[in-house]
Amino acid sequence: MNTQKNVNTSRPLDVLGKALNSQVLIKLKGGREFRGSLKSFDMHMNLVLNDAEELEGGETARRLGVVLIRGDNIVYISPG
Amino acid sequence: MNTQKNVNTSRPLDVLGKALNSQVLIKLKGGREFRGSLKSFDMHMNLVLNDAEELEGGETARRLGVVLIRGDNIVYISPG
Amino acid sequence: MNTQKNVNTSRPLDVLGKALNSQVLIKLKGGREFRGSLKSFDMHMNLVLNDAEELEGGETARRLGVVLIRGDNIVYISPG
Amino acid sequence: MNTQKNVNTSRPLDVLGKALNSQVLIKLKGGREFRGSLKSFDMHMNLVLNDAEELEGGETARRLGVVLIRGDNIVYISPG
Amino acid sequence: MNTQKNVNTSRPLDVLGKALNSQVLIKLKGGREFRGSLKSFDMHMNLVLNDAEELEGGETARRLGVVLIRGDNIVYISPG
Amino acid sequence: MNTQKNVNTSRPLDVLGKALNSQVLIKLKGGREFRGSLKSFDMHMNLVLNDAEELEGGETARRLGVVLIRGDNIVYISPG
Amino acid sequence: MNTQKNVNTSRPLDVLGKALNSQVLIKLKGGREFRGSLKSFDMHMNLVLNDAEELEGGETARRLGVVLIRGDNIVYISPG
Repeated sequence: MNTQKNVNTSRPLDVLGKALNSQVLIKLKGGREFRGSLKSFDMHMNLVLNDAEELEGGETARRLGVVLIRGDNIVYISPG
Repeated sequence: MNTQKNVNTSRPLDVLGKALNSQVLIKLKGGREFRGSLKSFDMHMNLVLNDAEELEGGETARRLGVVLIRGDNIVYISPG
Repeated sequence: MNTQKNVNTSRPLDVLGKALNSQVLIKLKGGREFRGSLKSFDMHMNLVLNDAEELEGGETARRLGVVLIRGDNIVYISPG
Repeated sequence: MNTQKNVNTSRPLDVLGKALNSQVLIKLKGGREFRGSLKSFDMHMNLVLNDAEELEGGETARRLGVVLIRGDNIVYISPG
Repeated sequence: MNTQKNVNTSRPLDVLGKALNSQVLIKLKGGREFRGSLKSFDMHMNLVLNDAEELEGGETARRLGVVLIRGDNIVYISPG
Repeated sequence: MNTQKNVNTSRPLDVLGKALNSQVLIKLKGGREFRGSLKSFDMHMNLVLNDAEELEGGETARRLGVVLIRGDNIVYISPG
Repeated sequence: MNTQKNVNTSRPLDVLGKALNSQVLIKLKGGREFRGSLKSFDMHMNLVLNDAEELEGGETARRLGVVLIRGDNIVYISPG
């Protein structure tokens, strides 16, 4: 249970802490893509974006404002 | 387990607390979309909407009144 | 773990308690739809309907009498 | 965690206890359907049928005798 | 949590205990079918078959010898 | 919870212990197939292969060297 | 629960500890493929890559820089 503690000093979710109030790109399992400012997250990777928009082909498809994304849908999160 | 406590002062589900008795848009994994007034939720994102309607292409497809949505179906929730 | 306690006084599954012995509409993940009188439920949303029928296009497709539905199949439950 | 205790006196799986040694109809997630005599079950809805048969279009497609069905496949169980 | 203890004296996985060192038929979620001699199992329904073969249309498609099947793939197990 | 202890003296994952440093065939849920020398495994069936190759139609499709396979993808593991 | 401790002295995730700050290839369930320098991981196989790129047919399809991949999407990880 403490595998990570032994082998590396940082934890994966630390990158989310550093990305707070910054732009992140979110890819979901169904292929959906969101971009917005990361306001909060938890250990399940549930997260809230401000000024969020859903993207299609890299273009804005829908403006959502504040959105809570359920963590189990997420494939990856990329800051910046 | 306390990752969130260290790195951000708010938690993702706090946005649901703020959205109580207000309109929310719910997107489900199968693509279904609901709009209604948020009456309650729990930590699994199970939630109850009042005056709920299922949407298709942004239009009302079915009026459901009170509806309990099982949290594991949810992709995202957007207040307002 | 006590997010719900802080932010709202009712819990989502309370609507099932109020719906006992009344008609409910159940939508399942595969699109199946059931209507019947709610006899019991648990915290997993496993539930028993009496006088249950499976619906197709809103019409009765199959009469099942008593049916136990496994909660993890459920998308939503709407009383009335 | 004790939602069910407060709001209803019976529990969903009680209908399985009543159905022991009687015929039940089982619908699985992939659409498979089984009929047989319920010999045992557990809280995961793992269950054993005797004199079990797989049905297609309501007709016997395969006689299985004793069969242990893994609970996570189950959509619904209907006694009788 | 002790539903099974109250309502039935045998447990579903007991049929696996009785089937040890005997032929069993295994149906997996993807439709795959295996037959072999049951050597061991655990509470997750992980199980080991000896002299195992994968079947297609009831015929031997592939001889596997010893095979460990991960329990979460299983739809049903039928002894004999 | 101790079903296995009562009914059979070996446990399914024991076959992996015996297969260490030997060739194993791994079938994944999506149909992928791997062959390699088993170096380690855990109770989730996460496992590491050395000299691993992905197979297609029984032929080498890709040489991977060391590969860590996440256990939840696995359908079956066959030693030898 | 301590199966691994008895039968093998290394654990599968140890290969990730050895791969820190080195190139890894990641295959996801939907078929996506990533390459990058492994910066951190946890016991869920959540992991962070630096200088990450998504591959298609072995060619760079998208440069992502830093990316956090949710562990439950992963099929395999291959160092080097």
